[in-house]
Amino acid sequence: MIAQTRSENRIKILGISGSGRKGSYNTALLNAAKELAPPSLLLETFDVSHLPLYNSDLEDKMPLEVEEFKRKIREADAILFATPEHNYTITAVMKNAIEWGNRPSNDNSWENKPAAIMSASSGPRGGVRAQLHLRQILVDLNMHALNRPLLLVANEEDKFDLNLKLTDPQIRETIRNMLVRLEEWTRKLQPILQKTSM
Amino acid sequence: MIAQTRSENRIKILGISGSGRKGSYNTALLNAAKELAPPSLLLETFDVSHLPLYNSDLEDKMPLEVEEFKRKIREADAILFATPEHNYTITAVMKNAIEWGNRPSNDNSWENKPAAIMSASSGPRGGVRAQLHLRQILVDLNMHALNRPLLLVANEEDKFDLNLKLTDPQIRETIRNMLVRLEEWTRKLQPILQKTSM
Amino acid sequence: MIAQTRSENRIKILGISGSGRKGSYNTALLNAAKELAPPSLLLETFDVSHLPLYNSDLEDKMPLEVEEFKRKIREADAILFATPEHNYTITAVMKNAIEWGNRPSNDNSWENKPAAIMSASSGPRGGVRAQLHLRQILVDLNMHALNRPLLLVANEEDKFDLNLKLTDPQIRETIRNMLVRLEEWTRKLQPILQKTSM
Amino acid sequence: MIAQTRSENRIKILGISGSGRKGSYNTALLNAAKELAPPSLLLETFDVSHLPLYNSDLEDKMPLEVEEFKRKIREADAILFATPEHNYTITAVMKNAIEWGNRPSNDNSWENKPAAIMSASSGPRGGVRAQLHLRQILVDLNMHALNRPLLLVANEEDKFDLNLKLTDPQIRETIRNMLVRLEEWTRKLQPILQKTSM
Repeated sequence: MIAQTRSENRIKILGISGSGRKGSYNTALLNAAKELAPPSLLLETFDVSHLPLYNSDLEDKMPLEVEEFKRKIREADAILFATPEHNYTITAVMKNAIEWGNRPSNDNSWENKPAAIMSASSGPRGGVRAQLHLRQILVDLNMHALNRPLLLVANEEDKFDLNLKLTDPQIRETIRNMLVRLEEWTRKLQPILQKTSM
Repeated sequence: MIAQTRSENRIKILGISGSGRKGSYNTALLNAAKELAPPSLLLETFDVSHLPLYNSDLEDKMPLEVEEFKRKIREADAILFATPEHNYTITAVMKNAIEWGNRPSNDNSWENKPAAIMSASSGPRGGVRAQLHLRQILVDLNMHALNRPLLLVANEEDKFDLNLKLTDPQIRETIRNMLVRLEEWTRKLQPILQKTSM
Repeated sequence: MIAQTRSENRIKILGISGSGRKGSYNTALLNAAKELAPPSLLLETFDVSHLPLYNSDLEDKMPLEVEEFKRKIREADAILFATPEHNYTITAVMKNAIEWGNRPSNDNSWENKPAAIMSASSGPRGGVRAQLHLRQILVDLNMHALNRPLLLVANEEDKFDLNLKLTDPQIRETIRNMLVRLEEWTRKLQPILQKTSM
Repeated sequence: MIAQTRSENRIKILGISGSGRKGSYNTALLNAAKELAPPSLLLETFDVSHLPLYNSDLEDKMPLEVEEFKRKIREADAILFATPEHNYTITAVMKNAIEWGNRPSNDNSWENKPAAIMSASSGPRGGVRAQLHLRQILVDLNMHALNRPLLLVANEEDKFDLNLKLTDPQIRETIRNMLVRLEEWTRKLQPILQKTSM
């Protein structure tokens, strides 16, 4: 059936926010991305702020919520990171999610996934330092990050309304553009996806 | 009394390991530092692997163990970080401790503390990438990291015995050297310490 | 003719060394890569150590050797960087070549090129810090760097003979592997190359 | 004589711009710093854009202008870097100056110098990435960089008049503040300077 085919051919994106606080602008960026995603993309998010703090001693009996998280990563065709910047780098929440996804050592769930990065910050730099660190981390995970567009939301509190809806038209356009490029990039890197569309 | 004066004049170092696992070589490095510290230094450690995962929503009622950790930081004259490298950067455990120490926004417990960095890794690079990231983070915390000596323990499993005692003579010497320099650096940056010794 | 078709289908790699000194181990790594390249790859090098020091005032009348360098970049399907590490980052020689390749502002010759990175150093880290910086630079150039294999040659003077021939069998194997992967990566990212082979 | 004593007690700062182009906003920042320096500071600059491109083969007979540059570094009590950001890092001009100052291997002219960093860029980030890289480099040089204030001039063309005089009052104030802090930092790290003032 056409409908089924179309749905099977959609790219699945897993969105991960580096903040668990109510009122997080980075989580709000992911919500904006859901709203702006073209029909060919399916964007789901997973709340990683309640995972236990990573400790390799826990690997013997992987926590259930970690297993669920790793399954979500594996099922995704690509990852969309939305990361605050705390102290010039990504948050502990984000780093913790990354470590669990990469463990145990023979089960890197991130392996070979295309990725895109967004960040929002209250200051004028928009999280640029956190993005640099995250990109370096993605090399070790063997992920493939989009180079462009840069999506750095500075002075975040001016770009959203009181309901945390993204109102800045330029950033909305950049998100749309990023999602289109992420889809192209994902289809290029995973030719198998291309074929299932035929 | 002389004894009391002497003890008051000791530099207090707080050692923080970025790993909570039993058998951590980074924690073992801190234990080696305790053994090797000159009498003019008092090195204590604090286990940060059980702190809750940072979330700004928790700041309204700071967790008790976080309050205790922040008190330990404030009481220290300098900080000694021992950080594993996970995915080219510091661990979530270490980043989480750093965020709590830096929060709430008007209470940066790290402010102006001298610091030194050690790292051990199973691979041949010894955690060099994690150290680079940590140094950048320390700039935001307004801490003052020693430039030298570099203390990078590569192939960690060859440098300790089965009881996790550091056996490598060269690394032991480097730790001794690092502690001497950290004391000098701390006394230079905090002239008040110098005075209390008179 | 078959021969011609085959030659047209070869991937052209431009190798760039960040050192101009006689006896450079990084230049020697590129020479090893030439020796080890499969027949489907054509690896050429360009000596960038004699380019003038970049100054935007010179852009009005681009130096001839810069024009030649930029032509070589554009003709290449992919770039192979061999970079020493000086002071925790790439050399001035390498940075200078990168700036010229990226200028003037409407003529980024590096645009969209796949890339791989090698480094050799006299110390035990093999240039790992220089590689991190170079990777960040490549993001701005919109290049696509291979994640793996890592090619870090530590203690370089032990890995080559007196004629600067690479003798270390493991590094030779890693270079072979890197070239195979760089070819795959290049053909994946530039489907047009694939087609011309038919 | 008092006048002589006072002049002998001034802190000597060497200012280095990472750009040699006419109309450089980073060079203009150094000129603003000269104008804003308190009487207790003497700020001189050295044009490093005409140094030969570093090559260790040239070390046998160090170029005269390099010798002069190294003498200027050694005579300075502290260094003030003004660095453009090209391709997410410092310029080739700046890196080249750094390498010469650090060579030959037994003559690191930068050793132990306090430092401060300014940057101006045409974009909205103000050179933040270049500053991160430069800070890492300074660790290897064993220099001691001020943590604060951050001096990042974004959208540089709006902050200067047509004669390249810095007109932005807030940035002027930040420069003043930086110079005061650099003096304090320098006197703290080099107690000998303190003594000559008595």
